Amino acid sequence: MSTNAIERLINELARLPGVGPRSARRLGLHLLKQKDQRIPHLVHALNTALAEVKTCSTCGALGDTDPCGICSDATRDATSLCVVEDVADVWAMERARVFRGRYHVLGGTLSAMDGRGPDSLRIEPLVQRAREGTLQELILALSATVAGQTTAHYVAERMAEFPVKITRLAQGIPMGGELDYLDDGTLGAALSARVSY
Amino acid sequence: MSTNAIERLINELARLPGVGPRSARRLGLHLLKQKDQRIPHLVHALNTALAEVKTCSTCGALGDTDPCGICSDATRDATSLCVVEDVADVWAMERARVFRGRYHVLGGTLSAMDGRGPDSLRIEPLVQRAREGTLQELILALSATVAGQTTAHYVAERMAEFPVKITRLAQGIPMGGELDYLDDGTLGAALSARVSY
Repeated sequence: MSTNAIERLINELARLPGVGPRSARRLGLHLLKQKDQRIPHLVHALNTALAEVKTCSTCGALGDTDPCGICSDATRDATSLCVVEDVADVWAMERARVFRGRYHVLGGTLSAMDGRGPDSLRIEPLVQRAREGTLQELILALSATVAGQTTAHYVAERMAEFPVKITRLAQGIPMGGELDYLDDGTLGAALSARVSY
Repeated sequence: MSTNAIERLINELARLPGVGPRSARRLGLHLLKQKDQRIPHLVHALNTALAEVKTCSTCGALGDTDPCGICSDATRDATSLCVVEDVADVWAMERARVFRGRYHVLGGTLSAMDGRGPDSLRIEPLVQRAREGTLQELILALSATVAGQTTAHYVAERMAEFPVKITRLAQGIPMGGELDYLDDGTLGAALSARVSY
């Protein structure tokens, strides 16, 4: 790590999530070993993303237009809105190809401990979208964690004034899950939500 | 993953070693979320590295000068040369601050299976350095793997014609190692290389 340029590259890589000093050195060395091939491609992809990617002012997801491709897609159901915590959740839903409505990204969860109140989330824009009146169902697709469920509860209360059906994702045994390996909370939720066979 | 720019960035990140599709999405999203702060810094670090980092024509390590900082440092012992497989090994030795001589990076190990013969390694440049005559000790700091030890053996044979002392790193119990968790090979090597107490 003798040079400034190498050190600065490794420090910058080490600021990425999940990349510690050791992986940063590995990534940096990998890039430097074939730098004339790899670095220009990566720089180009980064610069293109910087220039082209926008946050959708309607749903809060990322796209290269504003409104994003999903919000401006007339074939997608505008009456059904899926509320998620993060852009990554929109990507996960889209990969699963299970939902043909639209999204609303809150940008996180409420957390008294971390000082994240309702104003730090995109809840007001959600209320605005409900006021437009096209909405019929609001699906709360939030994490099955304390923070996620607190947020779901808060959003449900804020939306109670609108004539909108509010649902949440089912909780239960994940696909491929073996009873033996499931935690007590999941087993309990699956048991109380049992359905007739 | 609705846009081309996002997809291209994620694909480019997924080509880094140890970064799968899931971590690439995570890295990409992290960069995009604060893109005006993070992407320019990363691009700058990459471009600087691309422009400034050179492979040292003497030792084969990376530096921002050629010869590199270590090779041109007159305070470092030019009579002692540490032969390593990779640039990362030079960095590891330098971090440990245990060696004040100079390095020679082979650029890999011999491997009949992967078709890597002596010509694919920087062995000829090592012979050239030995011919210059200043060398007194050659330390083979290669991995304790079959490929590493095959390479060490080959290098030692090639250097036999020069009046140079050839040594290798000691094999034994690593610092903090518990006997119970050591593999048989390490235990065997440590036992046969036992020293008087």
